[in-house]
Amino acid sequence: MTGPNPTAAEKRMNAPENHARAVSEALASGEVDRACAIVLDLHAADAADVISQVHGSARSQLVEGLRETLHADVLAELETGIREEVLEQLGHGHIADAVVRLETDDAIGLLEDLDAGVRAQVLDAVPAMDRAHFESGLGYPEDSAGRLMQRDFIGIPEYWTVGQAIDFMRESEDLPEDFYELFVVDPAQRPVGTLPLNRFIRTPRDGVISSIMDKNLHLIPVDMDQEDAAFEFQQYDLMSAGVVGSSGRLLGVIMIDDIVDVIHEEVEEDLLRLGGVAETDLARSVFTTTRRRFSWLFVNLLTAIFASFVIFIFEATIEEIVAVAILMPIVASMAGNAGTQSLTVAVRALATHDLTAANASRIVVKELLVGFANGVLFAVMVTVVGGLWFGMPELGLVVGMATLFTMTVGTVAGILVPLGLQKSGVDPAIASSVFVTTITDVAGFFSFLGLVALLLL
Amino acid sequence: MTGPNPTAAEKRMNAPENHARAVSEALASGEVDRACAIVLDLHAADAADVISQVHGSARSQLVEGLRETLHADVLAELETGIREEVLEQLGHGHIADAVVRLETDDAIGLLEDLDAGVRAQVLDAVPAMDRAHFESGLGYPEDSAGRLMQRDFIGIPEYWTVGQAIDFMRESEDLPEDFYELFVVDPAQRPVGTLPLNRFIRTPRDGVISSIMDKNLHLIPVDMDQEDAAFEFQQYDLMSAGVVGSSGRLLGVIMIDDIVDVIHEEVEEDLLRLGGVAETDLARSVFTTTRRRFSWLFVNLLTAIFASFVIFIFEATIEEIVAVAILMPIVASMAGNAGTQSLTVAVRALATHDLTAANASRIVVKELLVGFANGVLFAVMVTVVGGLWFGMPELGLVVGMATLFTMTVGTVAGILVPLGLQKSGVDPAIASSVFVTTITDVAGFFSFLGLVALLLL
Repeated sequence: MTGPNPTAAEKRMNAPENHARAVSEALASGEVDRACAIVLDLHAADAADVISQVHGSARSQLVEGLRETLHADVLAELETGIREEVLEQLGHGHIADAVVRLETDDAIGLLEDLDAGVRAQVLDAVPAMDRAHFESGLGYPEDSAGRLMQRDFIGIPEYWTVGQAIDFMRESEDLPEDFYELFVVDPAQRPVGTLPLNRFIRTPRDGVISSIMDKNLHLIPVDMDQEDAAFEFQQYDLMSAGVVGSSGRLLGVIMIDDIVDVIHEEVEEDLLRLGGVAETDLARSVFTTTRRRFSWLFVNLLTAIFASFVIFIFEATIEEIVAVAILMPIVASMAGNAGTQSLTVAVRALATHDLTAANASRIVVKELLVGFANGVLFAVMVTVVGGLWFGMPELGLVVGMATLFTMTVGTVAGILVPLGLQKSGVDPAIASSVFVTTITDVAGFFSFLGLVALLLL
Repeated sequence: MTGPNPTAAEKRMNAPENHARAVSEALASGEVDRACAIVLDLHAADAADVISQVHGSARSQLVEGLRETLHADVLAELETGIREEVLEQLGHGHIADAVVRLETDDAIGLLEDLDAGVRAQVLDAVPAMDRAHFESGLGYPEDSAGRLMQRDFIGIPEYWTVGQAIDFMRESEDLPEDFYELFVVDPAQRPVGTLPLNRFIRTPRDGVISSIMDKNLHLIPVDMDQEDAAFEFQQYDLMSAGVVGSSGRLLGVIMIDDIVDVIHEEVEEDLLRLGGVAETDLARSVFTTTRRRFSWLFVNLLTAIFASFVIFIFEATIEEIVAVAILMPIVASMAGNAGTQSLTVAVRALATHDLTAANASRIVVKELLVGFANGVLFAVMVTVVGGLWFGMPELGLVVGMATLFTMTVGTVAGILVPLGLQKSGVDPAIASSVFVTTITDVAGFFSFLGLVALLLL
């Protein structure tokens, strides 16, 4: 008797981790062939995960063992940091073999990450026809629809019947690997309609394409930013969309599975940037990680010194009442957190087009009121705590006033800073938090210490 | 002569904002009908955006004007906060009309957000057949695959030919609105294969389904968490996937457009939680926003007081050397930022299954080294700044030592805290940053003030 079978999905959920462990063990005991066999048996995405999770010299052993057999798709699935390392090990001849076997968009994704020198060597080593394809793809701006699109699509004339189209597809040798809709194009290759396969399939053979096609086109300009293209897909629940050049000619098609990755990357990028890291460095070496995090920390050092300088101005005040040194971090911390809250909401709302010029002023007023409201609530608490702790009600009142002021300033800064950065063309996710915490630190220290100096000394 | 036509996409990119403005203006001048006409002309997703961006009493006027004509899809597209408000205004009779016109998953998404009382009234008002559907959907756990799936799919036996299947679909009246693959099922309705439409369409009529179907199934258990289901889709580039019950019977299908929303929501949720907000409150009232942000700020107040208490222990030290009060925020701030960096990477890596038990200990060691390395670099800078600023080299040395210690502790805490929370079943995104900043504040103040007390007094 066998127990209940785990479903395929349940098996898979634990799979990458278990496979990574099995592969590591095999490599540790010198059985490179067995390790390679496990990896070759996996879906490309899982194989890429296992390669990522195997560590250091074991990884290069594994890659060496897989040199002749590794599928190009696995390379496409590897995350950037590890891919660089693996590709370097494999050499440009191998990379050239791989890219010609990938779909255009995956090949370009792989090529665009290479050093210019290696990329030139790889392009030299691929057949002229592929090279022309890749070079024209790489000619589009980074992160544009042109980089994302596949060049293979099915374009049919509107006067065909369903039967003609079916026969064409049954006979045609070089159709795209995956497609979900047919494009109906005019003689100048400009799209005039699309036909989802499921509607196509339900129509009798004598149905005319022009009478069943969808004329409501969602076309993507080839130079559109991938983030905007992803917005189109999400907003209109698109499965695929035609990409057109400036003349309106259909150049390619973007599929939703590529967009899923873009959506994921773009939100993740915002999340990481808000946390002060440019990209995930999990798989990077200690040296690279240290170097990449350094610059953000260095900016923070400068702003921290600036905030300390504000305290320095009031050195005499602290000498007089040492309790202010104890309470001042509370003011700065409360305002910093209030600012981070409104900042986080604002950065996301800008990215999702929910915060626009049409409602910006209303949202700023709203944040002012929210900051003031929470400011009042916490000012009362801080007043009580500060007053009782040091037995100085007047000190409590002053720290409360400073809290109210700084929390209001911080909350409003949390919306104004990203709005301002966006307007100046700077990514609000990357720079907002350093501005906002500097503002809250400086405003907190200055208002609290200043009020103490003014009112209590 | 006309200038170059803007593409559909270019027109659209500016559309929601311009439409929102036009609608607001029409409402302001009392032309409700014109405002409604603009909204009715839009795609459901755009109409929902416009309704979200129109403000206060103008919005309720608009909704009132749209009462009889508003498409159910627009309600489904509204974001939760605003939808609550709009549904309340429309009343349960209208909601009942709307849900029966939506696809099952959208209807359930709408129903699950209602108050229990309103939901019961709505369910009472829908036809018995729909009610049974909705109730069984709502019976699955929140955020599970069961809530996400559509119940309409096409299941065909494996012994059919392509011709039989085509004829079946051409004749069948109630096919799902959208589908990208056919499910091949056994007599017990258990899936044995899938058939992407594009492969189906290319096969001659006499081809037998069993010989062209894809036997490599990616099935989703009905109680799987939607985040895990989204992971399956992303990992394997799925367009749709069958959802099966515990007996292996096919219950429904999840489409990638629903998964796109899940992916977006889940990453966005992590981002917002790291920023101390539970969900986006852009569209919420001042009162609701203030209340929702309050609890996070309250937790922060407690930890800030705790950190201040550590300073309080060393009150005498500050009285002796007031410069320590000026330098101590630098130590805490540097460590807090270093901790936030490793924390951000760790939270994302846990969510994407890139950080697992298989590589956790290696990553912890790596973060220790990164924290130490940046700690050394910044300790040197802080030593120089602190020593020169106050002309006390020994104070510089002490603040440098504290910086090194606290940055190392903070960086390691940034990985250990989310790992520990995940292990205890707590969402690392929601609680990690409060733990980490408390650790860095306390460690920073304690080590710096303690070292000063120990070595300099």
